[in-house]
Amino acid sequence: MKAKELMDKDFVFVSPDDNVREVSIIMEEVHIFNCPVLDENKKLIAWITSFEIIKGLRENKNKISEIMSPLEDISIINENDPSRLAVIEASNNKFVNLPVVNDDDVVVGIIRTYDIVKLLSTLYDIKVSKIYKAMESQLKNVTWDELMEASAVVYRRTTGINITPEEYENNINKATFGEAIWATGGLETFFAGLIAVGELVIARRVGRARK
Amino acid sequence: MKAKELMDKDFVFVSPDDNVREVSIIMEEVHIFNCPVLDENKKLIAWITSFEIIKGLRENKNKISEIMSPLEDISIINENDPSRLAVIEASNNKFVNLPVVNDDDVVVGIIRTYDIVKLLSTLYDIKVSKIYKAMESQLKNVTWDELMEASAVVYRRTTGINITPEEYENNINKATFGEAIWATGGLETFFAGLIAVGELVIARRVGRARK
Repeated sequence: MKAKELMDKDFVFVSPDDNVREVSIIMEEVHIFNCPVLDENKKLIAWITSFEIIKGLRENKNKISEIMSPLEDISIINENDPSRLAVIEASNNKFVNLPVVNDDDVVVGIIRTYDIVKLLSTLYDIKVSKIYKAMESQLKNVTWDELMEASAVVYRRTTGINITPEEYENNINKATFGEAIWATGGLETFFAGLIAVGELVIARRVGRARK
Repeated sequence: MKAKELMDKDFVFVSPDDNVREVSIIMEEVHIFNCPVLDENKKLIAWITSFEIIKGLRENKNKISEIMSPLEDISIINENDPSRLAVIEASNNKFVNLPVVNDDDVVVGIIRTYDIVKLLSTLYDIKVSKIYKAMESQLKNVTWDELMEASAVVYRRTTGINITPEEYENNINKATFGEAIWATGGLETFFAGLIAVGELVIARRVGRARK
């Protein structure tokens, strides 16, 4: 996934000649904490946050050019860069909005922290039962009930706690992938558990075939 | 994982009697776009963002109490709520900071969008090879080379593209879990692929045992 697929093409920008008070009203109305300062060709020349606006108002500054942050102080991402660079930037540099430029330094969009959270949480919020459904359709000749039985066995082996296949099914219908990862102690452990279930149902199927 | 494990206990707060100009300087120095307004017992009574500060400065307001947002306008999370509620809030309500309260409505911390991104991206940035390593240690009697061979076979079956086991190994050493999910088209598909690999190595092992 590229930055251009994650960015919002619809964004507010200001010009260096804009008035500080007027921009402060716009930012308040549109509810944005920061935005790019562009020249007449939409090229990125600076960045403005509520911090500069607040300072500008306190010190009675007139134009955005008097208070804006220079280019070297801001993180920028190219539209063709992988989205994960934006994710890394967001967690390292604590940005709220990140300008996305094309090869001519023209700003073509903005990546917002909220959108990153939304994207990452889509993954995280998938129900565990969906992963089991994928497993069921991958493993031909294995029924859903066999999967639940094997899962209850693996669960008992791993935790020492008895659970019925019905209780297990109930759990995975409620639990999300994110919760399962935290409960098992990590992505690798979670997958190892699923593989153990797969191994067990396959072993049982082979056992039946041999009889 | 509970909200209290994700929150930052070290946070800036203001009082309703604080002066707007002074708070504006603090927010600028500490680089925060918003913070809770607390009473003398640290109970949450309101919320303040740079938008209110900007308006307050423009309109020459004196005290925080004249510009703060009432409780009913803000999202709050209890310290014992699951962290995923914070994640859902972040992507739905586009907050930057979320106050965390205890059962007495005392603010005990703040959850920041950046921390959510950091948490979610830890998961997302795990190398695919780590998942294969977990699979290797789970499936006794199956070697790493057998896993890579089976993966190359499953890859060819799924995509129609020839790949050597060495090339496959090279790919999973570079690719992250997040990239693999995008490349395969989703978590379930990614996992179904892993199960297919597991199924194939187990079938080959059974085949060898019968010879």
